[in-house]
Amino acid sequence: MSEAEVPAEAGPAGRADFSTGRLEAFSDGVFAIAITLLVLDLGFPEPDSLHGVSLAGALARQWPSYFAYLVSFLVIGIIWINHHAMFALADRVDRRTLFANLFLLLTVSVIPYPTRMLAAYLTNAGRDGHTAAAVYAAAMVAMGAAFSLLFLSFTRDARVLRTPVSAKDLRAARRRFGFGGLIYLLAFGLAFVSPVAMLVTQGLLAVYYCFDQLAPARRTG
Amino acid sequence: MSEAEVPAEAGPAGRADFSTGRLEAFSDGVFAIAITLLVLDLGFPEPDSLHGVSLAGALARQWPSYFAYLVSFLVIGIIWINHHAMFALADRVDRRTLFANLFLLLTVSVIPYPTRMLAAYLTNAGRDGHTAAAVYAAAMVAMGAAFSLLFLSFTRDARVLRTPVSAKDLRAARRRFGFGGLIYLLAFGLAFVSPVAMLVTQGLLAVYYCFDQLAPARRTG
Amino acid sequence: MSEAEVPAEAGPAGRADFSTGRLEAFSDGVFAIAITLLVLDLGFPEPDSLHGVSLAGALARQWPSYFAYLVSFLVIGIIWINHHAMFALADRVDRRTLFANLFLLLTVSVIPYPTRMLAAYLTNAGRDGHTAAAVYAAAMVAMGAAFSLLFLSFTRDARVLRTPVSAKDLRAARRRFGFGGLIYLLAFGLAFVSPVAMLVTQGLLAVYYCFDQLAPARRTG
Amino acid sequence: MSEAEVPAEAGPAGRADFSTGRLEAFSDGVFAIAITLLVLDLGFPEPDSLHGVSLAGALARQWPSYFAYLVSFLVIGIIWINHHAMFALADRVDRRTLFANLFLLLTVSVIPYPTRMLAAYLTNAGRDGHTAAAVYAAAMVAMGAAFSLLFLSFTRDARVLRTPVSAKDLRAARRRFGFGGLIYLLAFGLAFVSPVAMLVTQGLLAVYYCFDQLAPARRTG
Repeated sequence: MSEAEVPAEAGPAGRADFSTGRLEAFSDGVFAIAITLLVLDLGFPEPDSLHGVSLAGALARQWPSYFAYLVSFLVIGIIWINHHAMFALADRVDRRTLFANLFLLLTVSVIPYPTRMLAAYLTNAGRDGHTAAAVYAAAMVAMGAAFSLLFLSFTRDARVLRTPVSAKDLRAARRRFGFGGLIYLLAFGLAFVSPVAMLVTQGLLAVYYCFDQLAPARRTG
Repeated sequence: MSEAEVPAEAGPAGRADFSTGRLEAFSDGVFAIAITLLVLDLGFPEPDSLHGVSLAGALARQWPSYFAYLVSFLVIGIIWINHHAMFALADRVDRRTLFANLFLLLTVSVIPYPTRMLAAYLTNAGRDGHTAAAVYAAAMVAMGAAFSLLFLSFTRDARVLRTPVSAKDLRAARRRFGFGGLIYLLAFGLAFVSPVAMLVTQGLLAVYYCFDQLAPARRTG
Repeated sequence: MSEAEVPAEAGPAGRADFSTGRLEAFSDGVFAIAITLLVLDLGFPEPDSLHGVSLAGALARQWPSYFAYLVSFLVIGIIWINHHAMFALADRVDRRTLFANLFLLLTVSVIPYPTRMLAAYLTNAGRDGHTAAAVYAAAMVAMGAAFSLLFLSFTRDARVLRTPVSAKDLRAARRRFGFGGLIYLLAFGLAFVSPVAMLVTQGLLAVYYCFDQLAPARRTG
Repeated sequence: MSEAEVPAEAGPAGRADFSTGRLEAFSDGVFAIAITLLVLDLGFPEPDSLHGVSLAGALARQWPSYFAYLVSFLVIGIIWINHHAMFALADRVDRRTLFANLFLLLTVSVIPYPTRMLAAYLTNAGRDGHTAAAVYAAAMVAMGAAFSLLFLSFTRDARVLRTPVSAKDLRAARRRFGFGGLIYLLAFGLAFVSPVAMLVTQGLLAVYYCFDQLAPARRTG
């Protein structure tokens, strides 16, 4: 199945074999579907099952669903923006990066699952609430790790990059990944204290990344 | 996607950092999925659950589902056409626009949820029908606001645009947004009077936008 | 919402305003999702609900689901191929074509709904089987009509086409559409005689279009 | 998509009529949706239905779902990488390849169905477990066969390829396809011995293809 191995522009060292165009298209598809599938997990009571409660009241009691939806939407959206920014730096990638990207997509496409589990158990004060929160936090740890791996694979060979990234910038980026990973692990620990606090932390982290992303534009704008 | 792309941090003013290619691809994905997921909410009675009613009769009684489906399909379709028309004006956007676009996608991807809730409660004459209609109308207000925000972010910096838009045209566009926002708020108010009237208004608004869109072509064609 | 109306390359007569790139991307998304969502409607009995029947036997009795799935997959696949072939003829389209395309996408994205209804009622010999078959056949009539409309809008202005299509070829194409429409109406009539015969006809029609499509390549190859 | 495109009927030999751009976009859409829909089949017990079992325990007992999910994700991901590598060799394809590709997409888009059936029956030691495993293995045989067909159609006419593939390389690729097909048939046989062994084999095969894919890069890197 792997015959078509040496495409037209294959580099002298057999690296950077694949154009990023289709990798981006496939990844965009997975990101777009994962972010849109989240809405399938938002429910509401059918007219017959309200038993005297008002629909408004019933929906208000569903805040965990809306909250988990919003945080997961933001997380996937920001990952997409980072993915976009990273792949804008190169025209071609090697096979290793293709597989690292596939691993990232695995962790992204799975997010709707822990999201709906967390929504169902968020207000559960006992053991099971902690389990659901830990699964959600673990999914985020995996996604963060996958993105770091992808970044390392991507920047391993400077020849791939259209615009060389300075060693100093790379070190700074790696420091940042380390810091992000630390927060993700911290959030994982929080899952065993309070599921709500864990989800708030994930939300704040996402909002922080938004502003962090906007910062360079403001500084130089 | 294949022209000389200046990476995110290299622009002289740090603005217009991202090529619109992937933004459009990701947005197209979300639009396409949201518009296609609507069909999952169209149901029909299983053969065993008809209890003497004919399938045709049972389907006829489901007109609220079909009506809500049609209006939401039109709304998303027209938003896509406007999105397309807007981004055809620029080759690159800045981070702020990326986030404004993400906010628009949030409001678009959520539409299947209020659509299926409204379908379930459309014929409910009481309080709960008003609630469902208000949620639907609120989703449309949010979407209209998100599109306005995106437009403002997009046109804030004239350098971004391939074809400069005259100040007069911008003022006219902003007037129009104000008018559109007014109608959306009016429809929100209608939700508390009659859910069906609210949905009819949304449908008429969408049809109006269709013809409004077709008008320039006819005038000059 | 419709301010961004005069894109950079707007023709002298305000026509052919939109590049086909994004129209194709959005349409591909809808086609791809509709064709893939079909699989969600394939069910199987849970282990506890078999009550002594073998899984193999239970699956065999589900042949209507598989049959309807296959026909609908083929129909959407062939529509996509025709869509592809048509839009390869032009670089830009006008607004009217954008809306005609949206109408086609409406009829395509809805296909999973009549498909699963037909699957549930295919073996129903009575009135309800005819209803489900008629709904399916009506969806196909609508899709055929939408494609014809799109084709007419697309070829109305010869200036849009990169490669002019001769008047003779256009007449031939229109004759073909007329013939196709006739068969679709015939299949609609068949729905009231036998749902299975109707579905077989749709399948044969799709297979016929496959070979028809392959024919030119063979004749000249 | 923007080079001078010769419409479908204009090629001198009527071959290689279609640009690969939209074929890839449509295929990427189907791959991305199929790989992401898998997550919809991951379930968890609702809070009320645990009856004293812990959520962690209930999830642990669901390992067949996770295992089947992982293997199917890998299989689709690797098919996508191979598809990508293959189509990077050509700019245009003929109608026959379009249909062969449609057949591959049929076998790919159906994968979520046998995956969720296998997950439900994986631990079933009797007849029904074998049935579910055989259906899954048969889906893989069909997919392998479809990919081989596509490859044959694709390489049939050397003029289509941007970079000619040597007769020796073609023979090697065909030998490999034969070998892969053999393993798939073997796995099909294993379904009747042990569903778990069948799934492990499919997983190992996928992992083998991963390393096989990475090998050339390492050898020459």
